Amino acid sequence: MLETRYDIRVDWGHCDPAQIVYNPNFVVWMEHGVNVLFEAAGHALSDLIRADPNRRGLPLVKSEASFMAPARFGEVLVLSSRVTRFGRTSFDIGHRFTRGDTVIAEGKQIRVWSVADPDDPDAIRAEPLPAEIRAGLEEDRIVTVRTFWQG
Amino acid sequence: MLETRYDIRVDWGHCDPAQIVYNPNFVVWMEHGVNVLFEAAGHALSDLIRADPNRRGLPLVKSEASFMAPARFGEVLVLSSRVTRFGRTSFDIGHRFTRGDTVIAEGKQIRVWSVADPDDPDAIRAEPLPAEIRAGLEEDRIVTVRTFWQG
Amino acid sequence: MLETRYDIRVDWGHCDPAQIVYNPNFVVWMEHGVNVLFEAAGHALSDLIRADPNRRGLPLVKSEASFMAPARFGEVLVLSSRVTRFGRTSFDIGHRFTRGDTVIAEGKQIRVWSVADPDDPDAIRAEPLPAEIRAGLEEDRIVTVRTFWQG
Amino acid sequence: MLETRYDIRVDWGHCDPAQIVYNPNFVVWMEHGVNVLFEAAGHALSDLIRADPNRRGLPLVKSEASFMAPARFGEVLVLSSRVTRFGRTSFDIGHRFTRGDTVIAEGKQIRVWSVADPDDPDAIRAEPLPAEIRAGLEEDRIVTVRTFWQG
Repeated sequence: MLETRYDIRVDWGHCDPAQIVYNPNFVVWMEHGVNVLFEAAGHALSDLIRADPNRRGLPLVKSEASFMAPARFGEVLVLSSRVTRFGRTSFDIGHRFTRGDTVIAEGKQIRVWSVADPDDPDAIRAEPLPAEIRAGLEEDRIVTVRTFWQG
Repeated sequence: MLETRYDIRVDWGHCDPAQIVYNPNFVVWMEHGVNVLFEAAGHALSDLIRADPNRRGLPLVKSEASFMAPARFGEVLVLSSRVTRFGRTSFDIGHRFTRGDTVIAEGKQIRVWSVADPDDPDAIRAEPLPAEIRAGLEEDRIVTVRTFWQG
Repeated sequence: MLETRYDIRVDWGHCDPAQIVYNPNFVVWMEHGVNVLFEAAGHALSDLIRADPNRRGLPLVKSEASFMAPARFGEVLVLSSRVTRFGRTSFDIGHRFTRGDTVIAEGKQIRVWSVADPDDPDAIRAEPLPAEIRAGLEEDRIVTVRTFWQG
Repeated sequence: MLETRYDIRVDWGHCDPAQIVYNPNFVVWMEHGVNVLFEAAGHALSDLIRADPNRRGLPLVKSEASFMAPARFGEVLVLSSRVTRFGRTSFDIGHRFTRGDTVIAEGKQIRVWSVADPDDPDAIRAEPLPAEIRAGLEEDRIVTVRTFWQG
C-alpha cells in the first residue's frame, strides 16, 4: 500500500499554555496528510476538484485518535499516512505521528468518495472510488515529503 | 449529570471550499465545550491553572467523532457536553452538535486529570479528579450558554 | 454609524506557550466581527451568498493591527466593529478589543465589495456597495452580541 | 541582511468558501516565517526558550499586511522574511508571499525582544536584542527551506 511520510515542523503557535501541541492541530495535520497521500498517488485533490467542480472533497464520516506522548515547539514530527481499508464508496486512512522512534499519536479516519448531488447541490452523494485512484493508493511504495534547509 | 449547551455560530472562516464546516473545527469546539463544562461546574480551568501553575490542563488520551450532517456558514449549532464516565484519574466527555432536531456530529473524549511531575517539569502525572470537581460535574443540571443580540 | 459589540471568550487553545492569546486569533476574531457587523446591519453575508452564488465575500485588501496589552485564558473580551470610511467599492472597518477599560488591540481593514468576474469565475471584480447595505451600516445604533449563562 | 525563503503548501483547509486562502492563514504563516528566520540565524526560538524559561517569545506590537492576489488549494507559495529595521529593543520584520513572479501578499511586523518581568511574572519587559542574535540576522545570506518529494 502507498505510504507517505510527511515532515511536520512544530511551531510556537501550534502549542498551548502547557507548552505542548494543542490537540486539534493533529487533526489539521491528518487532513494535510490525506492531501499528501492523494498527491503522491498521482491524483492530487486540487487537480480533481479543478477538473470537476462537483467534486466535494473526501467527507469525513468517522475518526479516532490516540495520543501517546506530547510534542513540543521546535520538534519535527513525521506523519505517515496510508489507506488501511477499501470499501465500496468509503475507505479508511491510518495516520501515525512519530518523532524518531517515539509514537506521538495515531489516528484512523473513515472517509467517503463523493460528488454534489445533481438534484440538490447542497447535498452530497457517495460514489465508488475510481479504479485508477484506488490503483495509485494501492501501489507498494513509500513517498517521503521532507523539508531541507540550504544556504 | 451536569450538561452544558453552548451556542456555536458558524462563521465564513470555519467553512472550506465545499462550503461546509472544515472538520477540525468540530474538534476545536469540543475543546471549548470542555472548558464551558468545567466552568459551569464551578471549577473554571482558567482559575484552577491560575491557582496552581503545575496544573497541566486535561490531556486528551483518546478521541472519537462521527459526522452525520454538514453545517454551513450562518447556522447556529448547539454543542451539548457532559461527563459520561468517571474512572480513577481518567474520565470520558461526550459531545453532541445539533441544529434544531438534526444531529450534526458526535464525539467522545477520554481525558486525564494531571499535574506536572515534580521530578521532571516536562512530564505529566495523572492524579485522581478532586472530589469537589467531580461533585460539580455530577450535579443533575443543564446550563445553557446562549448568545443574545440586542439593540 | 452602526457599531457591534461582540463578546469573545478566550479559551485555552487561543493561548500560546507564553500563556497569552496567540496573535493570529485577533485576526480571526476581526473576521468574525465583520460578519457580526453585516448581520446586525440586516444583511448577513451568509444570506447574501446563499442568494447569489457569485458573491465572493469581502476580500481584504489591506490590514493593520496594534497590540497594546495581552489577553489570557478565561477572560471575556469585547470586540467593537464599525465602518470608518466608505469609498466607491472599498470601505474601512475599524475594530477594537477591550477588557473592561483596557484596550487590548485595535485593527483597521480595507475591504472590497466584490463578485466573481462573469468572464473568468476565478477572478473577482470590485463593485459599488449596494445602497441598502450602506444604509444599514450607517445607522446610528449599537448592537451588542452577548453571551449569557443560565441554569 | 539574512533572508529566509520558506515553502508553503496551500492545503484544502486553508481555503474558504470563495475557494481562496482565508486571510488569517497569511498571519499564521508570517509567525512561522519569524521562527524560520531566527532558526536560520542560528538562534532558534525553541532553543532560546528552553534555555531560559523567562523568555516570552517576540511579542507583536504592530502589524500591517497587503493582499495583492488570491492563492488557491494545491499551490506552493514562497514566504521571504527578513529584518528591515533594528531599534533598541524592537525590530521590524518584512514578509513577502510569492507564487513564481506573482506577489500574493506582503506584511510588516514590529516586534519586541522581551522577558518576563521578575517583579510580576504576568508582565513582560522589553530588552535589547542580544548582539549575537542581531549579528546572525544581519548576515548577508539567503536560506531556503524547501520541501522535496522522493520515492
